Amino acid sequence: MARIGIIGSEGAMGHALASVIAAGGHALSGGVDKGGDPAGLADESDVLVDFSSPQALEANLHAAIGAGIPLVIGTTGLDATHHTAIDNAARVVPILQTGNTSLGVTLLAHLVREAAARLGPDWDIEIVEMHHRRKVDAPSGTALLLGEAAAQGRGIELAANRESGRDGHTGARRPGTIGFASLRGGTVAGEHSVILAGEQERLVLAHSAEDRSIFARGAIRAAEWLIGKPARRYTMEDVLEL
Amino acid sequence: MARIGIIGSEGAMGHALASVIAAGGHALSGGVDKGGDPAGLADESDVLVDFSSPQALEANLHAAIGAGIPLVIGTTGLDATHHTAIDNAARVVPILQTGNTSLGVTLLAHLVREAAARLGPDWDIEIVEMHHRRKVDAPSGTALLLGEAAAQGRGIELAANRESGRDGHTGARRPGTIGFASLRGGTVAGEHSVILAGEQERLVLAHSAEDRSIFARGAIRAAEWLIGKPARRYTMEDVLEL
Amino acid sequence: MARIGIIGSEGAMGHALASVIAAGGHALSGGVDKGGDPAGLADESDVLVDFSSPQALEANLHAAIGAGIPLVIGTTGLDATHHTAIDNAARVVPILQTGNTSLGVTLLAHLVREAAARLGPDWDIEIVEMHHRRKVDAPSGTALLLGEAAAQGRGIELAANRESGRDGHTGARRPGTIGFASLRGGTVAGEHSVILAGEQERLVLAHSAEDRSIFARGAIRAAEWLIGKPARRYTMEDVLEL
Amino acid sequence: MARIGIIGSEGAMGHALASVIAAGGHALSGGVDKGGDPAGLADESDVLVDFSSPQALEANLHAAIGAGIPLVIGTTGLDATHHTAIDNAARVVPILQTGNTSLGVTLLAHLVREAAARLGPDWDIEIVEMHHRRKVDAPSGTALLLGEAAAQGRGIELAANRESGRDGHTGARRPGTIGFASLRGGTVAGEHSVILAGEQERLVLAHSAEDRSIFARGAIRAAEWLIGKPARRYTMEDVLEL
Repeated sequence: MARIGIIGSEGAMGHALASVIAAGGHALSGGVDKGGDPAGLADESDVLVDFSSPQALEANLHAAIGAGIPLVIGTTGLDATHHTAIDNAARVVPILQTGNTSLGVTLLAHLVREAAARLGPDWDIEIVEMHHRRKVDAPSGTALLLGEAAAQGRGIELAANRESGRDGHTGARRPGTIGFASLRGGTVAGEHSVILAGEQERLVLAHSAEDRSIFARGAIRAAEWLIGKPARRYTMEDVLEL
Repeated sequence: MARIGIIGSEGAMGHALASVIAAGGHALSGGVDKGGDPAGLADESDVLVDFSSPQALEANLHAAIGAGIPLVIGTTGLDATHHTAIDNAARVVPILQTGNTSLGVTLLAHLVREAAARLGPDWDIEIVEMHHRRKVDAPSGTALLLGEAAAQGRGIELAANRESGRDGHTGARRPGTIGFASLRGGTVAGEHSVILAGEQERLVLAHSAEDRSIFARGAIRAAEWLIGKPARRYTMEDVLEL
Repeated sequence: MARIGIIGSEGAMGHALASVIAAGGHALSGGVDKGGDPAGLADESDVLVDFSSPQALEANLHAAIGAGIPLVIGTTGLDATHHTAIDNAARVVPILQTGNTSLGVTLLAHLVREAAARLGPDWDIEIVEMHHRRKVDAPSGTALLLGEAAAQGRGIELAANRESGRDGHTGARRPGTIGFASLRGGTVAGEHSVILAGEQERLVLAHSAEDRSIFARGAIRAAEWLIGKPARRYTMEDVLEL
Repeated sequence: MARIGIIGSEGAMGHALASVIAAGGHALSGGVDKGGDPAGLADESDVLVDFSSPQALEANLHAAIGAGIPLVIGTTGLDATHHTAIDNAARVVPILQTGNTSLGVTLLAHLVREAAARLGPDWDIEIVEMHHRRKVDAPSGTALLLGEAAAQGRGIELAANRESGRDGHTGARRPGTIGFASLRGGTVAGEHSVILAGEQERLVLAHSAEDRSIFARGAIRAAEWLIGKPARRYTMEDVLEL
């Protein structure tokens, strides 16, 4: 039974992680939040999961290295300096860093890349997402991640081929573009559909989340998987062996 | 067996109308297009269906009045003068004018109005539509028609409460607005969904067209229904007795 | 601020009701469960909500009558004797009894009845639902409720026109029937779609629940609405003024 | 410009193939139907496409071998003897035989196999399809093909794990099964959704056909692709390089 330590234990994700650990037959070795000591936590854990803040990253990497245990990083807002620090630490211990810990979204991105690669540019790609009424930006980060996967599959740059916010006299669809549309309303946790529309037929590859616990569940699955792996930097795709 | 005359017989809708008449056990009394004589056609018809041009409207109204038969008008691009002429003619013969002859869309608009009226403004309304890659404007006319129905149900003005083309930092959803999103791709004939999103639940009221023959079918159904009705101006909602 | 009393307070619905009352600015006057005294609870409440058991119904009706307050009954498994007892009590106090307290489902059933009435029997009606993997019966009670609404709209008996569990050599679809299909998987709280499929076009009227709190929310909305109404037996459709 | 010969030219698929060839910049070298001479056709063609009957298969294989050109076989109802004959002929000329020539469905099956392999048996798999009211069997052949792909991904036998036609008291969902549901109505050309339902999240991989021309389009694409390939037996997956 793996002993899992939570960094950022007082945040929404920290609480969600604790619930998943309790439900899943793992042991919660403990949690630290602002001002806490990750090194102490690391000594009692088999793996650490970090959903804290970029400011805490350096101390968290040191704690993992000091105890010789793996680290899953789901913290957002990392810059180039943080990524260099992660790369360096990943020479000593296994580290998985990701902006999206959902297994379903990770697999969807893989399937979208594959579909876009096989179908060719005469199939138009559209991405539509729906989230709750409080979300303040559009398209969602996950929609952009799926758009990147589609662009990779086609061997194009997303930035140069992105079409968002259609309204008014748009003209005919520009060939090769990837379209985005965003719906907002109610309490929707998150739904994403990637539509590939060809001549008289369509493929739709979609994911829906019932609540945000899926991110905690995916992070714990990643943590389990990371124990015993060689030192290296990993992604969620590695967990699914994609 | 009703004898149906087509004005605008050489256009795409004219051909579609002729197919539906042939398939449906009606008699095609004939067709006229640019330069043709609607009065002669009217004398041999029980009802006329007009999908021609605003320029031809006056002659078509005269033809219907002269023969004392009903007229279905599906021509688009009518202005206030045309509508006054229709109102005047409708004192003498039954006339149905509409921007959308689909029975399914007509019923959907009615259901949307009803749902919006019952649910109250804490349910967010979003309208998403998908059409083929050649469509040059967004949102579609049908999406706006559905938005108008929702606004009527709520007793608000659509123009002041419309949110289209979300992109970038939008902020939280403004309460009471009606959102629109447009997808484009492939050869999709036309799909519309109206989403009413409340606390932990959602209603979706949707219509999809497999091809454009539904507009011809609805127009012929309207023409049949109009025969023998008292002189008055009618809408598609009257055909469905809504 | 209405004081709401819960009968069946220790069940899953009892807990959900307490959460909704707390979140919604109402006062929870108290709760009773097996062996408790509903009369005492009634004296301190403006309205009672009963999600207990058929065995407790008689005592609950007496409590409401004794205190002269309304009663919402969401208990399932009632037989003809129970319904007679409810009818009698409803001559003295307002009582709303229902098998489904969701506002969204109540409205959907109304829209389905309307659509089925307008479209005529050449539009085929199919009902598909999805629920979590632990559900033991099919189709769901809500799917059958929607099927009844469709049958009423068409003026037919559901029992004689129901088609479920298609598998193998079925032959062509029998005209006028209402089809049912049931999907099971994961943790889906409940999704229902009613499809009306005509020539080249389709209407889909759908509801999805994110979790079961919607039933508690609808029951509390019904309880609020019932306060001050004349003695009579009511339904959820009355709450939405359908 | 490839010269394409059609065997079974008077059937519905034969006509559809001729339309696609005309629209796509290929040359129709000719067509034969019952009683015609495939050998003569083969001499004037770069590739043959066969949508005729199992009875004609032997003569068609001989014709392809005689002219040394490739053959696409979309004929249904083949038995083990026919498959042996195809295997033998495929030692001499390239032959692609398939029960479904749609590129979209071929890709979907591949994505379903991949998803089922990655996600593990705690994700429930359900397949739902809708077809027009005249279809006489359920589930559709394409739904079964998708079910086979899912079963392969999981390393199980479909026959032993198939759950169709849920109705009545079914009990909880049996772990590891693949469920099927069939909707019938209107004029729907063909829609298939594969749902993978996990804890609080779902993937949906879906295909919809607007009309049956997609089968002709895929067959012509396969025919083009087959020209110049080494003698071997191929599948639609090879065309997409899956």
